[in-house]
Amino acid sequence: MRTIEVSLLENIVKNIYPLNESSKEEAKKRLDRLIKPQGSLGKMEDICVQLAGIHESKYFDTSKKAIIAFAGDHGVYEEGVAPDPQNITVLQFPNFAKGLCGVGTICKFVGADVVAVDVGINCSEKLDGVIDRKIRKGTSNMAKELAMTKEEAIKCLEIGIEIAEEYINKGYKLIGIGEMGIGNTTPSTAIISVIGGCDPQEITGIGAGLKKERLKHKADTIRKAIDLHNPNPEDGIDILSKVGGFEIGAMAGVILACSANKIPVVIDGFISYASALLAYKINPVSREYMIASHTSAEAGANKALSILGLNPVLNMDMRLGEGSGAALAFNIIEASNYTYTNMATFDEVDMGR
Amino acid sequence: MRTIEVSLLENIVKNIYPLNESSKEEAKKRLDRLIKPQGSLGKMEDICVQLAGIHESKYFDTSKKAIIAFAGDHGVYEEGVAPDPQNITVLQFPNFAKGLCGVGTICKFVGADVVAVDVGINCSEKLDGVIDRKIRKGTSNMAKELAMTKEEAIKCLEIGIEIAEEYINKGYKLIGIGEMGIGNTTPSTAIISVIGGCDPQEITGIGAGLKKERLKHKADTIRKAIDLHNPNPEDGIDILSKVGGFEIGAMAGVILACSANKIPVVIDGFISYASALLAYKINPVSREYMIASHTSAEAGANKALSILGLNPVLNMDMRLGEGSGAALAFNIIEASNYTYTNMATFDEVDMGR
Repeated sequence: MRTIEVSLLENIVKNIYPLNESSKEEAKKRLDRLIKPQGSLGKMEDICVQLAGIHESKYFDTSKKAIIAFAGDHGVYEEGVAPDPQNITVLQFPNFAKGLCGVGTICKFVGADVVAVDVGINCSEKLDGVIDRKIRKGTSNMAKELAMTKEEAIKCLEIGIEIAEEYINKGYKLIGIGEMGIGNTTPSTAIISVIGGCDPQEITGIGAGLKKERLKHKADTIRKAIDLHNPNPEDGIDILSKVGGFEIGAMAGVILACSANKIPVVIDGFISYASALLAYKINPVSREYMIASHTSAEAGANKALSILGLNPVLNMDMRLGEGSGAALAFNIIEASNYTYTNMATFDEVDMGR
Repeated sequence: MRTIEVSLLENIVKNIYPLNESSKEEAKKRLDRLIKPQGSLGKMEDICVQLAGIHESKYFDTSKKAIIAFAGDHGVYEEGVAPDPQNITVLQFPNFAKGLCGVGTICKFVGADVVAVDVGINCSEKLDGVIDRKIRKGTSNMAKELAMTKEEAIKCLEIGIEIAEEYINKGYKLIGIGEMGIGNTTPSTAIISVIGGCDPQEITGIGAGLKKERLKHKADTIRKAIDLHNPNPEDGIDILSKVGGFEIGAMAGVILACSANKIPVVIDGFISYASALLAYKINPVSREYMIASHTSAEAGANKALSILGLNPVLNMDMRLGEGSGAALAFNIIEASNYTYTNMATFDEVDMGR
């Protein structure tokens, strides 16, 4: 059983290739023939070139789209690093697919589906509208032991891969990632600290609304976990196992699956930056398939984005998570595609050249 | 005739009031009852509070919307400050309403109308689909004489007011501003230099694609015009007359009319920042009615935005103008409104509080 599971991850990771250069060139050529100064649509143009390179086609369809969101709880919650009761995870997550919470509502507006997957919520009951792929009822407390075993780390990556491939096979052409998990800015900050080579104090933020006087305690807890386990900054699976979270690993799995299947994947905010960094460490080429949606208001956001070389399209000061920023950015991506496809060219209109 | 026209502007300027505080409070209360951490939707929330205050209502409708765009040519073009032939203005402007150019295509995507108004294109013919309110065939060369008379400055502000009020009376609830005019980053930079109290060299950019070696000449030309006319930095009409443009003044008129009629007005990029600064100098309360769409890639953008205290939602590196950024931001504004209206509250869903 275990050998087969490792093979799924390995098989995906082996099959991630750089974007198609000739499709990118075709898109660039069309963009330069549209009736505007060259490059003047900025990131709208960058997105179209990237989408052409990913879909290996001059034109591409991004209308069938979904946010794939994962929820998990965190053993480190017991250290007092989050302001909300842990059971918010189980109470809120069913609202994703029902369209009641932030990401669900934004997805209704933009015409996207929401796929909600339980990979580790601290509850026994089945949740309405939620796919049950629970690994266990939350990670262990990383300040005292490994957040998860190496086998569990591989397992949550593979759940992300399996779910993503299921929806890619159903015809989804644009995927965003989202999450829910009370306390999950703590493992995310740990991952970014390890990969960014910086002290947690520099990049620890308030998450969903931690009181400022608790920030030092949160940073100290993260530092304690890192010192205890000494994760290898070049090994994404090692970091995930030692200081990660099930939903964080599953989102990294979605990124890897999208990359291997040539589907653009929209990164949400802070938690998803941690997933993106894990995917990047597992295979750096995966970065070419990522589109950054919004700049998180969380302290470590710029650190993570600069490592990834990503520059988000939205600047909303949002810190909700869930995939809400990725869902909002779907609109900008589709507007870019529509404009690229439908604007007139100098060949069609007399513009004196 | 002249007395009546001055009265129209004066009447609008006298009737701009701060936003309705109790409607803002009602919106804040609802936002704080939505199932999310308080404030976590960032600028989506700010937009909703602002729209409630403008429309004087807890809920508001932003679906009927338009970009009002003005075109004019510039006498200072003869100084060699722009890379494109001047006749691009007349060739491109009819594509606005036809939906062929950038703003026209984006407006089709977001479901907005485009209103195109000629206030000073250097041509004799009537343009297809364009409203003819031409003042004259372009401003005078500000490096040698006044760009326009004081009467013309008032005239272009009033054309903006009249067109905006016509569309507000037709039921439009959300208006964005746009423009076309080869060379118009030059007067815009002049306006921002005067109001910002800085040397043109600090904030002069490449506009639609001026070669870098021509930048100093462009800044020198702007400085020469400012030194020649010495506009009063506190007097928007004086600045407009001495170093402005017809389309820049008309956009300022739209802002003032929207403010007096309690309609939100979406600012586009660099040229429209100059219009926003003029409106702000004519009546500072107008700022409360502005929504900033995107950060322009032009050098002086941050200077203008910091004076206005505006913080755009989009970060697209766009430098097309036309109203393209404002049109793209319509989607974010509507997504904000939809989310605010449709997300569940803690009263409707059991979230343990």
